Amino acid sequence: MEIAILLYDRFTALDCIGPYELLSRLPGARVRFVSVDGGLVRADTGMLAVQTEGPLDRIDAPDLVLVPGGPGDEAAAADGRIRAWLRRVHPKTKWTTSVCTGSIVLAAAGLLDGIEATTHWARRERLAELGATPVSKRVVRAGKIVTGAGVSAGIDMALELVREEMGADFAQGLQLAIEYDPDPPFDAGSPSKAPAHVLEMVRGVMNDLSRREGAG
Amino acid sequence: MEIAILLYDRFTALDCIGPYELLSRLPGARVRFVSVDGGLVRADTGMLAVQTEGPLDRIDAPDLVLVPGGPGDEAAAADGRIRAWLRRVHPKTKWTTSVCTGSIVLAAAGLLDGIEATTHWARRERLAELGATPVSKRVVRAGKIVTGAGVSAGIDMALELVREEMGADFAQGLQLAIEYDPDPPFDAGSPSKAPAHVLEMVRGVMNDLSRREGAG
Repeated sequence: MEIAILLYDRFTALDCIGPYELLSRLPGARVRFVSVDGGLVRADTGMLAVQTEGPLDRIDAPDLVLVPGGPGDEAAAADGRIRAWLRRVHPKTKWTTSVCTGSIVLAAAGLLDGIEATTHWARRERLAELGATPVSKRVVRAGKIVTGAGVSAGIDMALELVREEMGADFAQGLQLAIEYDPDPPFDAGSPSKAPAHVLEMVRGVMNDLSRREGAG
Repeated sequence: MEIAILLYDRFTALDCIGPYELLSRLPGARVRFVSVDGGLVRADTGMLAVQTEGPLDRIDAPDLVLVPGGPGDEAAAADGRIRAWLRRVHPKTKWTTSVCTGSIVLAAAGLLDGIEATTHWARRERLAELGATPVSKRVVRAGKIVTGAGVSAGIDMALELVREEMGADFAQGLQLAIEYDPDPPFDAGSPSKAPAHVLEMVRGVMNDLSRREGAG
């Protein structure tokens, strides 16, 4: 299975490294990190750079596309070369997927018109503006389009894709191999569970960030 | 806070990208991915390359060191430049940490002699051989040495470090920001929970891998 993970300036690394860690273990999988121009692409923190292949217009149709989110999502969504590539490869994929605000990029390319999808909890309105039907779930499957919620949700999404591809035993084997027996010290990972003052704090930070990025 | 994440050939990416995603958001944090020679370092799948700084002997004492695991763990543990660097910087760190078999590397450098630590569930005996006292917990703290279990455990470990540094509100805020509300489709992430035939399958694959690597 040919897997293309689309990186762009200021992507969020865990969005794609979570799923990569699982999907790359599918038998016969070849993961390629790709970008508009190839070369090093820097994550949102500015502290991590990943090598990519490009230019994008020479990357042929993969079986699975994954688009991570990140503060660079709107700039990526505004890039005609990214939108054109997604429109070109999507008809031939087996799976077209996103994590976090990667769905903003898919939606901007017109791939989510009227389709149920998820995104980071703070960006659901923006996803709706772009024509998708936001659903408040961690993983949303609409035919071959599978979207994950914020950042860490990509791990759960990938486990479901692995199950689809290889069955439950294999998927559980990978879960065990990466010792994914989550035990966070708090139960604050969703807006419905976090304390109200924590939710307000994070919402404030994310709104400031969106405004600075000129995003929805 | 200066954070150094030590990469080596055939590291496992999620081991360090999970904690990176959280620790890099600490106020004033600067994360540097470092390696013996600098330049691109390739993960265990061969499909991901991360840019690093080096050479290691010019990397000054960071406040926090993190060593990921991976199939290259024994080769890293055998590298005198890595062991020397760890021994040099450890006395000045605030936190010395590892995820998965990164603890094998710490132990080989002599940092875990008689100290309680964890590692990937399949490698506990090897950790004991190297002088540590393996503990079957997801995150083990022994003074300033904090070790996480396999791969995904680094996320939980980092949340605890963030709480130590910035308090529970901030840690919960980061958990919410990365929407870490785990919901795997199976409950198979530890040897005590996975079905017996899945455990045997994974143990077999990991033993083969260890033999090929010439490891414990």
